[in-house]
This record gives sequence, structure tokens and C-alpha cells, in this order.
Amino acid sequence: MKLTKLIPAVALASAMPLVAFAQDAEAAAPAPGFDEFGPYIMTTLLFLIGGFLVMWMAAGFAMLEAGLVRSKNATTQLLKNIVLFSLAAIMYWFIGYALMYPGDAWIIPGIIGSIGTASMEPVGLAAADADLGYASVASDFFFQLMFCATTASIVSGTLAERIKIWPFFVFVIVLTGVIYPIEASWQWGGGFLSEMGFSDFAGSTIVHSAGGWAALAGAIILGPRIGKYKDGKVTAFPGSNLALATLGTFILWLGWFGFNGGSQLAAGTVGDITDVGRIFVNTNMAAAAGSVAALILTQLIYGKIDLTMVLNGALAGLVSITAEPLAPSLFMALIIGGIGGVIVVFAVPMLDKVKIDDVVGAIPVHLICGIWGTIAVPLTNDGTSFGTQLVGIVSIGAFTFIVSLVLWTILKILGGIRVSEEAEITGLDKAELGMEAYPEFYKG
Amino acid sequence: MKLTKLIPAVALASAMPLVAFAQDAEAAAPAPGFDEFGPYIMTTLLFLIGGFLVMWMAAGFAMLEAGLVRSKNATTQLLKNIVLFSLAAIMYWFIGYALMYPGDAWIIPGIIGSIGTASMEPVGLAAADADLGYASVASDFFFQLMFCATTASIVSGTLAERIKIWPFFVFVIVLTGVIYPIEASWQWGGGFLSEMGFSDFAGSTIVHSAGGWAALAGAIILGPRIGKYKDGKVTAFPGSNLALATLGTFILWLGWFGFNGGSQLAAGTVGDITDVGRIFVNTNMAAAAGSVAALILTQLIYGKIDLTMVLNGALAGLVSITAEPLAPSLFMALIIGGIGGVIVVFAVPMLDKVKIDDVVGAIPVHLICGIWGTIAVPLTNDGTSFGTQLVGIVSIGAFTFIVSLVLWTILKILGGIRVSEEAEITGLDKAELGMEAYPEFYKG
Amino acid sequence: MKLTKLIPAVALASAMPLVAFAQDAEAAAPAPGFDEFGPYIMTTLLFLIGGFLVMWMAAGFAMLEAGLVRSKNATTQLLKNIVLFSLAAIMYWFIGYALMYPGDAWIIPGIIGSIGTASMEPVGLAAADADLGYASVASDFFFQLMFCATTASIVSGTLAERIKIWPFFVFVIVLTGVIYPIEASWQWGGGFLSEMGFSDFAGSTIVHSAGGWAALAGAIILGPRIGKYKDGKVTAFPGSNLALATLGTFILWLGWFGFNGGSQLAAGTVGDITDVGRIFVNTNMAAAAGSVAALILTQLIYGKIDLTMVLNGALAGLVSITAEPLAPSLFMALIIGGIGGVIVVFAVPMLDKVKIDDVVGAIPVHLICGIWGTIAVPLTNDGTSFGTQLVGIVSIGAFTFIVSLVLWTILKILGGIRVSEEAEITGLDKAELGMEAYPEFYKG
Repeated sequence: MKLTKLIPAVALASAMPLVAFAQDAEAAAPAPGFDEFGPYIMTTLLFLIGGFLVMWMAAGFAMLEAGLVRSKNATTQLLKNIVLFSLAAIMYWFIGYALMYPGDAWIIPGIIGSIGTASMEPVGLAAADADLGYASVASDFFFQLMFCATTASIVSGTLAERIKIWPFFVFVIVLTGVIYPIEASWQWGGGFLSEMGFSDFAGSTIVHSAGGWAALAGAIILGPRIGKYKDGKVTAFPGSNLALATLGTFILWLGWFGFNGGSQLAAGTVGDITDVGRIFVNTNMAAAAGSVAALILTQLIYGKIDLTMVLNGALAGLVSITAEPLAPSLFMALIIGGIGGVIVVFAVPMLDKVKIDDVVGAIPVHLICGIWGTIAVPLTNDGTSFGTQLVGIVSIGAFTFIVSLVLWTILKILGGIRVSEEAEITGLDKAELGMEAYPEFYKG
Repeated sequence: MKLTKLIPAVALASAMPLVAFAQDAEAAAPAPGFDEFGPYIMTTLLFLIGGFLVMWMAAGFAMLEAGLVRSKNATTQLLKNIVLFSLAAIMYWFIGYALMYPGDAWIIPGIIGSIGTASMEPVGLAAADADLGYASVASDFFFQLMFCATTASIVSGTLAERIKIWPFFVFVIVLTGVIYPIEASWQWGGGFLSEMGFSDFAGSTIVHSAGGWAALAGAIILGPRIGKYKDGKVTAFPGSNLALATLGTFILWLGWFGFNGGSQLAAGTVGDITDVGRIFVNTNMAAAAGSVAALILTQLIYGKIDLTMVLNGALAGLVSITAEPLAPSLFMALIIGGIGGVIVVFAVPMLDKVKIDDVVGAIPVHLICGIWGTIAVPLTNDGTSFGTQLVGIVSIGAFTFIVSLVLWTILKILGGIRVSEEAEITGLDKAELGMEAYPEFYKG
Repeated sequence: MKLTKLIPAVALASAMPLVAFAQDAEAAAPAPGFDEFGPYIMTTLLFLIGGFLVMWMAAGFAMLEAGLVRSKNATTQLLKNIVLFSLAAIMYWFIGYALMYPGDAWIIPGIIGSIGTASMEPVGLAAADADLGYASVASDFFFQLMFCATTASIVSGTLAERIKIWPFFVFVIVLTGVIYPIEASWQWGGGFLSEMGFSDFAGSTIVHSAGGWAALAGAIILGPRIGKYKDGKVTAFPGSNLALATLGTFILWLGWFGFNGGSQLAAGTVGDITDVGRIFVNTNMAAAAGSVAALILTQLIYGKIDLTMVLNGALAGLVSITAEPLAPSLFMALIIGGIGGVIVVFAVPMLDKVKIDDVVGAIPVHLICGIWGTIAVPLTNDGTSFGTQLVGIVSIGAFTFIVSLVLWTILKILGGIRVSEEAEITGLDKAELGMEAYPEFYKG
């Protein structure tokens, strides 16, 4: 205590918040030491850092989508993104987490989890109890919640510029409370896919293609935007703010280090933290390769580089490496991510050919590259097989797609999911919200 | 050293920066081991991570405010935000930190701290000295500084679009150098409020409502914008860039994990890191609940969702949980944050009724919800009482409000704090700075 | 395992991804304990956190530059920034890392490193091998890669609004694959500068002024924008989106904590983490001082505050402290950063006098302040000398400038590096990419 005169005050200050749980002070007295519980502390820290990085991806989706829609729909898109994240946070607590991690209490073993709200360990228990799990329950909940929210974020972009706000929120509630937790439980909750040996490290299928399937179902029921496919021609509706779209992509790229790195689910041994390092560089390499692949391809095919393709190429690389970011060498990560970038360049126009109107390209990026990444796992991971990977892709895809299709149809029947033609032409911001994103800038 | 041929070079490289303090090498020889000092290391890391997250909130305020003002005042708002953060960094070092953490050297015991500049421990001392505090002094300073800066950020939004730039900076200098450090010392520096048992975990009152009181004083002295309240009607001046405002809200939401989580002030035991996890999920839940509460309420009351209310609802939830983010269950966090969201929806029009013109809604969000959060502490924390909470709210509120009122009045007398009517109509960017934020976009 | 019913499921879930490397399970059985390897774990974590913060700086440069160019060139600037980051990631893996860290295998000892691609330790090796380096190879690669990418980011801003896209990418490939790794190897790879005792903690010279020299060479070969210097007058081309520019500055400020703090290259002892804390506060102080210095100076000299100068002042402070963020006291950090801010205010018009057109001010900020910061090292670090610092500045500067000059000239001869006059007037976005950043907003 001899450093500076400030130290004692600092120490005092630190004692203040502790008053909050002073009642536990006695129980906590012989607090488990640092050494023995270092791994618990480090893994909890990994969940918290990984979690806040993935939370940041919600902002990335918001910026990407607000930048890629026309400015007359930007407010609506921003609103949908912050609200879907909020709804996910509530629903995942309310029923999702228990459905996803039922322990031994499955309603239908390996298929449908249990009913209940999530709860954290009581304050002070961890401090007093030496017989703990491998990390704090709350930190695990925090991290897992962010994956649930990401799944919903994926849906929002595809359906932009024409969907009614409230039915979208209802869909998000079911998706984050029920659909995602159930299909994710099959693998991450110890359900039938994990028993089979399916492998999806951080969720190429469980998060990204699931989100993509839900989006595809919505796009089919909803139909394309007015004027998108007319007289056999595809009309491009350029994004209104590419600076925002680029910012969103950078945010997603950053957040993905938490998404994939945190999915190591452990950081307290030399082996685990070294693996997290491998995951970081592979994730980065795949994104870079996807971006460069789209760069070169759009130049070759169209004679001009397409920035939105480059952005989606980076995201495609990220989705592709997500099923197995640990096992590949840097060279294999480059290949896997680069193929993701190639897929996006070809899949976007193909989707237009079948008149599925995906405003931001989420289906090529998340659904198709999610499948590609999952199929690619056995290329680098000996413990997996193409057959099992396919079973995982198909079962999660079929479940998510069919339930989503049914849900969108019900919503359509109940009150409609599409705004009026007039509202769509005016723009959802003015028509539905009465609030423009850029009210002072003249529009072309 | 047998991993790859690169390792030796890496090791060499790592030695390079060490040259910088080679003079301390000998003293440092028997460096305190990792095991014994794990908690010191982890808590220092918590301060650094928490600190950079809260620093990021300065960008969040900048974006939120630049998005909510009219574009003719956006440059000014951006300038104010980056400069206030800079001034806070300098003033908190120059006098703030010593005032706030006087140790045993109070000028007036428990009320006014000591005089002096902050200093870090010398390079190499920590390495050589086994008799250390619980974390590095610099990391603590870094973390605490960010709270001081946040207090100033809150003020800047309320007074937008009409305040003169230099008087605002003078106010910031006094606020960050004197007003905040004094009132914060009462609790976090071990002053009279902490002795009484007042509880404000991360600063609902000490940071947020203090900033709100300073803003309110300014708004009263400054008066409303031209045309805001005319002929008994309230005119809405819509924000010019809601994408920025949404981005700012997401940034603040992200930064708040550092704000509340870092306020645990310790991360090196199982109990502490588990508490940080609880704080993260409660913080997130309160924000989500505030956002959804504002969503539902604006739909019910106005028949249309109001995005800026939803954004402020999320922030209101965050402010509300800040006084006690550790003790509540997830359900209680939802209630506390949700009520924050409700408060904002009702407080914004109420403020307009009394003709207090708060451009971004900082007073409802930070002042009123800060009070609510502080009053709510005894609901979940047995060691506190409503009476003591009220004493804390009133003493910090009265002090900050009165000193701010006096200071704004002095500034008004000395040279005026409000731009000319002409400048206000033209916009501060052109009139005061000669620099528009979006010079190429036509304005409506 | 008695906390809640959720724990067993959580534990199960955590086992899932582990399937991915189950083949290593046996080898990993006696995994090195936490205690002994705590420093390895903490330093790896520092690299990963520092690395993702510096990665985020790529977004900062993108926003800063997109905000400071005219809107007709914003898409191009965004594209260049995401692609240069991607190219850097690939090239640094492909040849850069081996060139920079050759170990004992120099091609020309101390001057030119070795040939080869970078590789990570195999999965599971770290877990099984107790005889490890001081941190994971992949985490080191990740961190170092980000510095390489930053060097390229600096170049992109200066040459905006007139350079052809593909020649720029070719330059980036050579810069990130060859030029940067070679000059950086002289110091950080254990080359001749490090043997001499040159000191550049986090790269004021190695990263920032190197990037600045490459930019200067390009600006000379490329020439100024049409209309910039006409009839002896300098025409200002105001940035089109100052909100983005401010956001970019905040992002860079945030990322710099990783840039400088991570350059401690160790976090597993009390001494190291305490140093990281010192670095954080010094970095912050220098930025604040640079910003305030530019604020005061522009008011005094021009009678009006210039926001872009304040932003560049903050960046100038950051660059200035980067050569020695550890040794200075807070007061010296304020002086060093403040002088950086002063330099920028005077250097920007000086550069215009010699008709070097630097669109974003990267040469004053990164080149000139990089030199200043490197020269200032002996002021606070006894183990260094002005002479040796000058040798480092001159050798890295001469090498980078001359090689860049040659490369830009070759590119000019081969196919030209400048767009047509017509394309420049139309804007690169329409002319080269056929894609506007803000297609719906009327331009003035």
C-alpha cells in the first residue's frame, strides 16, 4: 500500500459496490483461490468478451441492412433490428434457454427440451461454493443468447422494404423462443444430432443457415418487392447508404471473432487459448479470402467491381468457416472462405432467376454458405463424415423451413404480413411509422 | 522452443519493446509470480477492458446526438463530443482524480477531497514490488476517467442546437475537474454517502442523474430553441439521421457492459467474475425490457411506433439497472428496465409541457431514470434502505444542480451562452464553425 | 454440479465443439496446468484482444476516409479499405510474416528475412506440449498482421479521389507482402535496427511513418486532384460526411488501446499488466492533448474551430505517443501528444504550399508525427539516443519512400495509376464502379 497516496482511497472505493452483497461476505470468506479456479475465471471471461463481440453484431446487421435498403425504408429497418435483439433477449430467457439446454429433463429426449425460465446462480453462491461448473451460468447464458439473436438478425434483411412490422416481431418471438432453441438443442443441448456426431463448431448450420431458411420461407410467402421482377427483367434497387453497409460489414467481421473464438467454450488451459488463437486467424483469413474472391469475380464477370458483392463475399467467407474454424490450416481457411465468396457471386443472380427477392443477400450468404461450410467440415476434421453432416443440414433445414413456412402462412392468414401497395411505394418509414431516417435530405 | 522456425524470431521480437525499460530489468528479476498475483492481473485487465468499452460510449453519445439534431448543427455536436472527452481526460488527471479519491487527505472530511494531479506507479515498480494494491493504479485511473467523461457527454445532448461552443467547454472543464469528482467522492471516494450506506453500484445517480441535473440547469438558463414552443404548441424537430442515432444507441448498449461489469472492480476470484457475468445479463435484460416497453407504449398511445422512443427506452433501461445490476434476478432486471422504458415515454412530453427543451431526451433518460434506478435498489438489495437512497439522490442532485445553475448563470453574465438568433436559424455549423457536416446533400 | 438444472446441459454443450478435435484428446490428457502457464494464457489473450481492437481500426480508416472525400468518391474509398485489409491478411500470411520474423534464417542477415508462408502450431500440440513459447503462434500472427494492414490503410486516404483501383491494390500487395515486412524486420524481427538499440515501441516509425512515406511517394507520382491548386490558390474540398469522419476517429482512438497496449507483448506478470495500464492512460492522454491543441490553435489562427483539424489532432497525438507509450508520465504524454496536435495544424497548409495533395491529412498525421514521436523517445526513455532514433527514422523512411516511388513509377508506366480527367470530375464511384454511395441524396 505504499505506491501513492491515492491507493488507499482506491481500495476504499472498490469496497463500495461490495456493500451490495455484504450479506454474503461471511459465506464467501474462504473464497476459492485463483490458482485452482483460474480456468473457471478465464472461461467465464471468454464468454463475456465473446458475448459482447457477438452482441455488437446486432449493430452490424442494423447498419448493413439500413445501408442496403432504400432510404424510405431505413427507419423501419433500424427499428426492426434493435427490437428483434430486445425480443430475443427476453424470449431466450423466458423459454429459449431451457428448451435449448434441458440437461436430463427433455420433454422428448434429444428432440424437444424442457420448459422453464433461465436463472443465474444466486449472488455469492459461486464465491462460497468450491464445487462449480466450468464457467459462470450467467456468462454462458449471455454468450448463447447472442447466437439466438443473430439467427433473428439474419431474417430481417431478406424481408425488408415490404413486411409489416408487428407480424415480423411475432415471428421473431417464435423464432428466438422456440424454433432456434429447439433445433440448436439437437446439437448444442446434447440432442440427437450431437449423439450422431454432427459437427458445427460455431453454427454455420445451427445459426446461419437456420436463419437463412427462416428468411427463405418468409421471402416465398411474402413475395418480391413491387417492380423488382417486371417483364422478365430484374431491377436493381441500389442500397441508399453504402458507408453504413460497409460499416456494418466491418462490425460483423469484428464480432465474428467472438462468435467463432468464444465457441471454443473454454480458455483456461494452454490448449484452449491456443485453439482460440487458431480460430481467430482462420476466421480472419476466410473473410479476407471471401472478399477477394468476390472482388476478382465481379471484375471478371461484370467488368466492374461490385462493393456490395465484396461486402457479402467477406460475410460469406465468415459464414463458411464457422462450421469448423479450428481444424483448418490457414491455407484451407483461405480455400473454404474463398469458395464462400464465389458462391455468393453466383447465388445472388440465381436467386433472382427464381424470383426470390432477398433485399440484402442474406440467403446466399447465410443459408447457402452455411450449408457449404458445414459440408466442408470433413475436409479438415477427421472425426466427421459427409453423411452425418448432411443429416444435420437436412434435419435443421427441414425443421426450420417448414415451421417457418407454417408460421408465416398463419400470420398471413391472421392479419397479413405485407404492407399495402401504396405504403410500399411511399416507403414504410412514412407510411407505417411516420418517421423518416433522413428527413432533411432530398431523395432522388 | 520447437514449435516452428518462427518462434525464436517471435521471442526475439517480443524482447524489443522491453529494451524500453531495460533499466528496470534487474529490479524486476524476481517478478511476482502469476499464481499469487493472478487476481491483481485479472482485475487490472477488467479495468482496461471495462475502460475501453466505456470510452467507446463517448462515440455512442456523439453518434446519438449527431443523429438527433438537425443536420445544420451536426458538425457542432460532433465537435462538442470529441472535445468534451478530451477535456475530461485532461481535467480528471489535472485535479479530478485527487478530488475524487483523496485517501486520508480530505480538505473537508467526507465532502471535499484533496488537491493534486494523478500519477501512475513508476515503470518497473510493480514488477519489483510484491506489496501491491489490488490492481494497477493506471488501470483504475483509466476506468474511473471514463465515468467522468460520460457525465459530460450526457450534458451535451440536451443543450444542442443553441449553445455557444466555448462556454460549453468551460462548463465541461468545471464539471469534469470539480463538480463530478466532488459529488462522486462522497460515495466512491469513501465520503459521507458511503459512510451512510448509500448504494449506487455503477452510477445511476453519481454519473447519470448528475449529468442530467447539470443538463437541466443548462436547459433552464439557456431556454428552448426558437420555434420549439410557439402559440402553446410543441413543434417536433425530427432527428436528421436516425441511422446514426441507432448506431449510437447500440454503441452505448455495448459500452454499458463495461460500465456496469467493470464496476464490480474485481475479476480475480470465482465470486467476482461470476458477479460480472450476472451484471452483464442483467444489464442486457434491462435494456431489452426498456426498448420493448417503449415499443409497446408508443404503439398503444400514439398508434405508431416511435423509433427514437425505442432507442431512448433501451437507454432508459440501461440507466435504471445501473444503480444495482448485480442483485436483481433476470426477472427483476426486466421489471426495473421496463419501468425505465415506461418512464421515458411519459417524461418526454411532460418535459415539453414545462417548456424545458431537451434535444435528445437526456433528462428523461439519465436524470429521471437515474433516480428511478437508485430508488429501486432496496427492492433487490437487503443491505440498503429507501431513506438512505433518497439522501444520496437529493444531496448529489442538489449539489450538482445548484452549482451548475450558478456556473451557467456566471457564464451567461460573462459573455453569454446562447448563439444569436440568426446563427441559430442558420445553424451553428455554418454560423459558428463555417463547416457543414453534409455539405453536398440538399437540405429540406 | 448442483447449481441449477441447467448446468449439466451447459457442460454437455461445451463438450460438443470439442468433438472437433477429439482425436487429440489422449495426447492432451495431462494438459499443462493453469498456474504454470497462466502467463502464456494471459499473453495470448492480450494478443487476441489487442488484435481485434487493431482490426477495428481498419473500419476506422474506412469511415474517416469515406467521410473526408466528396460523396462521389465514397464508394471507391470504402471498397479500397475493405479490400486492402483483405489483401494484407492474405499477403502477410503468404510471405510477410516469414520475411518479418525469419528467426535465424535470414536471407541477408539483419536486412532481408526468409521465404515461406506462416503456419500455426497444429491443433492439440499446445495442449500436449509443456515446452512452449511465451504465447500462441497464431495469436502473435493475428496481432502482427493487424499492424501490417494498418500501414496500408494509411496510404489509402492520401491518394483518394484520383487513383485507379487496381494499381492501388497491386501497391497494397507489395506493401503488405514485402515492403512493410522487410522494414519491420529490421526492428521487430531482430534485424540491424534492433541490434543498434533503435526504439519504436508500437510503431510510430515502423507503421505510421512508413505508411506515410508510401503515401507521400504515391502523392508525388500521382499529382494533386484537378482544381486543388489553381492560379496559386488552394481550394478546399470539404469532406462530405463529417459524422462518418468523427466516427472513424473515435474508432481509431479505441483501436489504439490495442495497438499500443498489445505492443507490450506480455500480460502474464504483475509488471507487464501494470505496464499495459500505463500505456492505456498515456495513449488516451496524448490523443486528448492533440485534440485540444488543434482546437485552441485553429481558434487562435483562423478564428474558427476546425473539426477535421481536431480529429486529426487527436490522431496526431496518438501517432506521437506510439513510439514510447510506456515510459512517459501523464504530463509528458500530454506534452508529446499536444505537440503532435500543433504539428498537424501547421503541417497541413505547409503540404499544400508544396502542392502535395493529401486528401485526409495522412502525411502530417502519420508521417510527420510519426517522426516526431520517434525523436521524442529519448526524452523519457534513458536507454535510447537521438542518434540511433534518427538512424531508424532515416533508414526506414529512405527504404520505404524509395521502393514506393519506384513501384508507383513502374505502375504508372505499365498502365497508369490515375483515372481519366473525365472520370475524376464525374467521380470514381460512377465512372469506375457504377455504384454510388448515396444514390438517393441530391448532391450540391
